[in-house]
Amino acid sequence: MKGAEEEVGIPKGFKLAGVHCGIKKKRKDLGIVYSEAPCVAAAVFTTNLVKAAPLIYDVEVLKVNRTNIRAITVNSGVANACTGVQGLKNAKRTAEKTAEVLGIPTESVLVSSTGVIGVQLPMEKLERGIEEAVKHLGEDPIPFAEAIMTTDTKIKLHERKVLLGGKEVTVLGVAKGSGMIHPNMATMLSFLITDARIDPKALESILRASVDDTYNMIDVDGDTSTNDMVVILANGLAGNVEIHEDTDEYWKFFEAVHEVNTVLARKIVEDGEGATKVIEVVVLHAPDRASARKIARAIASSNLVKTAIYGEDANWGRVFAAAGYSGAVFDPGKLDLYFESEHGRELVAMNGEGIPFNEVKVREILSASLVRIVLDMKQGNASATAWGSDLTEKYVEINGRYRT
Amino acid sequence: MKGAEEEVGIPKGFKLAGVHCGIKKKRKDLGIVYSEAPCVAAAVFTTNLVKAAPLIYDVEVLKVNRTNIRAITVNSGVANACTGVQGLKNAKRTAEKTAEVLGIPTESVLVSSTGVIGVQLPMEKLERGIEEAVKHLGEDPIPFAEAIMTTDTKIKLHERKVLLGGKEVTVLGVAKGSGMIHPNMATMLSFLITDARIDPKALESILRASVDDTYNMIDVDGDTSTNDMVVILANGLAGNVEIHEDTDEYWKFFEAVHEVNTVLARKIVEDGEGATKVIEVVVLHAPDRASARKIARAIASSNLVKTAIYGEDANWGRVFAAAGYSGAVFDPGKLDLYFESEHGRELVAMNGEGIPFNEVKVREILSASLVRIVLDMKQGNASATAWGSDLTEKYVEINGRYRT
Repeated sequence: MKGAEEEVGIPKGFKLAGVHCGIKKKRKDLGIVYSEAPCVAAAVFTTNLVKAAPLIYDVEVLKVNRTNIRAITVNSGVANACTGVQGLKNAKRTAEKTAEVLGIPTESVLVSSTGVIGVQLPMEKLERGIEEAVKHLGEDPIPFAEAIMTTDTKIKLHERKVLLGGKEVTVLGVAKGSGMIHPNMATMLSFLITDARIDPKALESILRASVDDTYNMIDVDGDTSTNDMVVILANGLAGNVEIHEDTDEYWKFFEAVHEVNTVLARKIVEDGEGATKVIEVVVLHAPDRASARKIARAIASSNLVKTAIYGEDANWGRVFAAAGYSGAVFDPGKLDLYFESEHGRELVAMNGEGIPFNEVKVREILSASLVRIVLDMKQGNASATAWGSDLTEKYVEINGRYRT
Repeated sequence: MKGAEEEVGIPKGFKLAGVHCGIKKKRKDLGIVYSEAPCVAAAVFTTNLVKAAPLIYDVEVLKVNRTNIRAITVNSGVANACTGVQGLKNAKRTAEKTAEVLGIPTESVLVSSTGVIGVQLPMEKLERGIEEAVKHLGEDPIPFAEAIMTTDTKIKLHERKVLLGGKEVTVLGVAKGSGMIHPNMATMLSFLITDARIDPKALESILRASVDDTYNMIDVDGDTSTNDMVVILANGLAGNVEIHEDTDEYWKFFEAVHEVNTVLARKIVEDGEGATKVIEVVVLHAPDRASARKIARAIASSNLVKTAIYGEDANWGRVFAAAGYSGAVFDPGKLDLYFESEHGRELVAMNGEGIPFNEVKVREILSASLVRIVLDMKQGNASATAWGSDLTEKYVEINGRYRT
């Protein structure tokens, strides 16, 4: 299993497990995160109007309890979306069963699902799986990371340690989500656990700001899932002084959380369905931040740009066209465009027009596995970065017959 | 050449030509439409902020002259987009040359281009081509239809006759645009010519309304070209009483123009790059028209829906997910979803939830070349239809190496 080579520590007081309970044929399909101590929690859910049952359930839990979360139960294989009243009952029952087995209050359990839409969870299997998973709770995060995968080909983990007032604080993130052209089924899940002690408001603001520049810049085309969620749990066992907004410790901790999210977001793109390359779109000197974000996302999500990069074809006109339809308002006559990678950097258009460039060199630049498209707009001070994968024949093959 | 089997008449007083002038290696690349009598003109141009030089030029012409247009010169192979001051000069020179050769005023000529962005037009070849094309002007629209093609595999023509006060009026449309997942390079061109006599305001309002429900519902994902344009010329030689807004004749003529646009829009989708199926998305009983349009377009443009239909996989959850992220606000708990084709019709989800359905029958339904996705929202009286093609491995192949 790739990704497993990374040495990952685990924040104090947390345990994880991942087992096979029978939703999928063979692979692990049920994971639990558990904390010995009550956690402050923050979460960001999909903006899709069609929300899966576990998300509807979690929103209700977090309305009444943001400071005493103890566990998250996640299944893969079935999304529990478009499942009506029965789906909501099953989400609740999943939390109840987890609480019973762990001996904690029901309202301290969050639930999450990913998989096929419109199918009910097989509750008997799931409940037996919860019993089994609790027996396997331990300090190895890999079984959990495996249990939340769907079409992912690699587990996605990242850990960061940071010193806060002399105390070592650990942030561990585990994510899934492979189809990042459009997320398949279209689910992107990310669970962060940390032993930091932090005020709930501070945790919330850190998570929101970080998600905006990471997962929200890879989920580039609005093809957001019914099930997308990012959750962070902080149990305070690191013993640091409680973190409050806009303090030095806050920014240090932000930086740690943001690194974890950035790395996980990149790993999701790298594992894009059938993807061979990561495309990093950097928009510089935009008139304002909203425009920079729109333009970066439009370029990173353009099928024409994706296929051109896959074909290692310096078709910069498609980049300009995508900027033009992004909805941002700007002067196209000022744009400079560079292609960049480990093999070098080449200016291919200047002041909105094509210029002669070295085709051989650009083809070499585009042959890298990480290709950067740098659009210097020369009309302001805002910037934004978005990530996409290329679009390949393999993507179509994977997604053409997903259910069968 | 497919499409040529269709018998096409030509409106009175128009002549067309299509020749090879050397922009492309072998295929025809220059077309001219000419009218013996002055035409009332209306046009709709791309909403892309990055507009090609011919569009910028035409907008200026139409500001001062909407009643004496005599010709349109169109080239394929080079888009004349992102070409700066020289590009604008070349667009103007194309009009001047056409005017010289035809012996008409420069301001009675419109120009149009499609092809690669960022390359200057080879003006010597183009000017010689204009001389050549004028010699070939005649009543066969097929050479013109061929001359405006890029990655199109079929010519796209449709003609409709309508009686207005006892006078026979003809509307002929010629279009190009194959990449309709995202239009390749991303150009969609459509030229309509008619011998109707019509007031300029009436012509304008007819064109706008019709484009909104045809080309704008296939150009589904905002990946609009720098070069997209739809133009209609009406020379009045049919001898009908001048058409004014909101009269019976107006609506009869609207219907004729709309049929031509609808058929051409469908032909564009059918010829989508690598497409094997047309997906028609019908949204019924939506809360309002704007929501119906958003939802229909989101579904028709979803890569996940496109690949599922290509794979003949009844993955209706992806349809609900696309509706959910469309930006429209609605109650997901009321949605019914049908798959429909010449092979029958099957309800697959009801009141926002999946229901048991006949997998074998649905697979048969999805095997048709025209698949209809009918979303009955049961929460209002608005409706909308959008069209998309499926997404295939072939699309990626075509677009991965377009320039080379």
